[in-house]
Amino acid sequence: MAELVRLPASAHAELLELLGPEGLVTDAQVVASHLVDWTGRFRGTGPAVLRPRDTAEVAGVVAVCRRHGVAVVPQGGNTGLVGGSVPHEGEVVLSLRRLAAIEPVAERSRQITVGAGAVLAVVQAATRRHALDVPVDLGARDSATVGGMVATNAGGLQVLRHGSMRRHLKGIEAVLGDGSTISHLGGLDKDNTGYDLAGLLCGSEGTLGVITAVRLGLVSRPSHRVTALVAFASAAGAVDAVATWRRSLPDLEAAELFTGDGVGLVCRTGGARDPFERRHPWYVLVDVAGPHDPSDDLAAAVSSIDDVLDVAVATDEPRRAALWALREEHTPAINTLGAPHKLDVTLPLDALAAFLVDVPRTVAEAAPAATTWLFGHVGDGNVHVNVVGVAPDDERVDEAVLRHVADLGGSISAEHGIGVAKRRWLHLNRSEAELHAFRAIRSALDPDHILNPAVLV
Amino acid sequence: MAELVRLPASAHAELLELLGPEGLVTDAQVVASHLVDWTGRFRGTGPAVLRPRDTAEVAGVVAVCRRHGVAVVPQGGNTGLVGGSVPHEGEVVLSLRRLAAIEPVAERSRQITVGAGAVLAVVQAATRRHALDVPVDLGARDSATVGGMVATNAGGLQVLRHGSMRRHLKGIEAVLGDGSTISHLGGLDKDNTGYDLAGLLCGSEGTLGVITAVRLGLVSRPSHRVTALVAFASAAGAVDAVATWRRSLPDLEAAELFTGDGVGLVCRTGGARDPFERRHPWYVLVDVAGPHDPSDDLAAAVSSIDDVLDVAVATDEPRRAALWALREEHTPAINTLGAPHKLDVTLPLDALAAFLVDVPRTVAEAAPAATTWLFGHVGDGNVHVNVVGVAPDDERVDEAVLRHVADLGGSISAEHGIGVAKRRWLHLNRSEAELHAFRAIRSALDPDHILNPAVLV
Repeated sequence: MAELVRLPASAHAELLELLGPEGLVTDAQVVASHLVDWTGRFRGTGPAVLRPRDTAEVAGVVAVCRRHGVAVVPQGGNTGLVGGSVPHEGEVVLSLRRLAAIEPVAERSRQITVGAGAVLAVVQAATRRHALDVPVDLGARDSATVGGMVATNAGGLQVLRHGSMRRHLKGIEAVLGDGSTISHLGGLDKDNTGYDLAGLLCGSEGTLGVITAVRLGLVSRPSHRVTALVAFASAAGAVDAVATWRRSLPDLEAAELFTGDGVGLVCRTGGARDPFERRHPWYVLVDVAGPHDPSDDLAAAVSSIDDVLDVAVATDEPRRAALWALREEHTPAINTLGAPHKLDVTLPLDALAAFLVDVPRTVAEAAPAATTWLFGHVGDGNVHVNVVGVAPDDERVDEAVLRHVADLGGSISAEHGIGVAKRRWLHLNRSEAELHAFRAIRSALDPDHILNPAVLV
Repeated sequence: MAELVRLPASAHAELLELLGPEGLVTDAQVVASHLVDWTGRFRGTGPAVLRPRDTAEVAGVVAVCRRHGVAVVPQGGNTGLVGGSVPHEGEVVLSLRRLAAIEPVAERSRQITVGAGAVLAVVQAATRRHALDVPVDLGARDSATVGGMVATNAGGLQVLRHGSMRRHLKGIEAVLGDGSTISHLGGLDKDNTGYDLAGLLCGSEGTLGVITAVRLGLVSRPSHRVTALVAFASAAGAVDAVATWRRSLPDLEAAELFTGDGVGLVCRTGGARDPFERRHPWYVLVDVAGPHDPSDDLAAAVSSIDDVLDVAVATDEPRRAALWALREEHTPAINTLGAPHKLDVTLPLDALAAFLVDVPRTVAEAAPAATTWLFGHVGDGNVHVNVVGVAPDDERVDEAVLRHVADLGGSISAEHGIGVAKRRWLHLNRSEAELHAFRAIRSALDPDHILNPAVLV
């Protein structure tokens, strides 16, 4: 429906002069591809895609749009899951994809400066040549941009060890909603000179400023890595084991939970093969990685747990990949059943096991025909509740699950953010005083409310 | 001169009713002890010390003070070094010391909730019973409060490994300047539900809200620890060695730099003994700590560096303490020479060695009679430039050193904050756009500007 929305002629002329024809895209077909998220759930309307080349052009775009009252949706790789990077009410899309410069790795400080539009996998390739790595990795690595990962405080597969994007953010450049450009990319490990603007922009989902470049801390790429798939009879056994391993295995890098039903599904769709002779109720996939061979430590840690039903260990890359496929193929396998409602939540660790057992019942009560698929980052308490068999706009399941989470003291968004998808439930986690503080901060940095107006608060 | 400043009678009456006589201290002698920082450099005036018992009383204090236009300086252990916790222009002191509750350690999530007034050493004792530790440690541990450490994003001795306070802040409770109370202490490792208010309050130096309680992540207390004192001929050799060790020693926990002159001073004042037969120009003290004995890794790492002149290793606690005394006795030893100007700065690692060599010249040009003492957290690029022999209010040395730092791309405050001491130089690190954003955020959360008005911007 791109053709139904138009830019004011004067704004169009100014943007064309600023960005040139390559930077102002109004071709309906191209624009349409930017109006929908990759899951197909969130589809909006918008008159144009703006493709600035550099920070100065981004600042120019924000200035023009402020002057004409045109709202803006910043967009990176558009791999988000909460509808935060597509327009909803006729906003223009501001694509950061052309700001993809990657500076040389700073060896001594172990940092790198990259443009917001740099794709994660490309940055990973650049850093790995120096035996260093971006500390955050996620399945969408071939599309997700670093700017988008910062804007959403992305988590992913190694949060257990390294934390989310905010922890590694050593500097930021952004055009704030008030039109000003801030640039603080010096990359100092310690710098207590005022408020943490970088940390505030991180996770703000494009509502405070348009991130144009970031300085990231890197981590050493471990020379040894072992993967193990461990089977359990109960969710409680799995959760308790991971809590124990977090203490006994300092080099524990990932601990991913999934179910026997999930393994059955990914094996049926051909995405992976079950290494065990029989199916078990619960699985935990662990990665342990460090400067020494962690095999002995891992074996001792696994054998210290009475509840373990079975274990498969992989030390070489092909067999590690085969085990990881059991986890990573969950998303495509579930998609073959229909477009899922993806509910990304955190539970307090003390409530996690009971939630894993109870949540399918919560879903069934709200939608008897739906099926529930559970997987997630069990060491962080982070569960991805995937529900299939519910209409895209039927939010009864979402409501029931998120209330269940909040009642247990959990978070309704672990790592995906609020976007538009969870905006109506934000009050489950945040008090009126907090929401008021959010609005006050937003008005302070984006006084005309032109940045991602449909998102967050 | 506390007796020269008075609270408005109506405010006094309301505060007395709210806090009772124990919570509203106007005795001139007691008040006076809260009006000066521990170095004696910053001394202000103020009519009273308020000592609320809980968060509700803090909220009441902020409400009364807003109504009467009385400005407030939050104060924890008053161990800061930039004059940020003493009043300057007649503000009341809001002491958080009575909010010292310490909740039980949450074993599974490895977290703890403590009141803002809890003293670091007391929290350390509580967590160490569970083989867990607060990830930030500093020399002022017997006085510094956790609330103050969060308000200033304290760093200290283990930042190299664990980062500063902000990284470990899993939740916060605070009374904002607008009078509202926010409380988000659930302690979830992943929680992307809106702006990072906790991270924003962390390092805001009491200007946005009064922190009343925090939820902290803890780390495993390593079972093995080795300390080594390593001597170098040049600053460049020391800096390069630490950069190498940061990569080759994943369990490197601290890397502290000091000079031969500094060792001479601490040995003369009786604070420590030199383990070597001859004095060397530069020293690095390293701690390596982990789940396995790191002695072999450390020996290999040290012997891989050609520039090492001498090395002393300590594996037991008394000998480790003897080596650490060489570093920790710097502060008292320097104080015997007079009240130093303490300039806490970060240099980019590539500029650090040259700065260490050049900065005494910068000081000498500004104040020929002054002496310069250098020590710091070399792995982070953090140097404490101590200058003795300059009058407390003579800021020419401060100006010269901070300009030198900024010219090299460094930070004028690594871990102490801005306070009042560095406010006039904040522009060296922060652009007008950033300062404008700081002011906008401050006005958003403290619209009447009653919180620590003399501090930061």
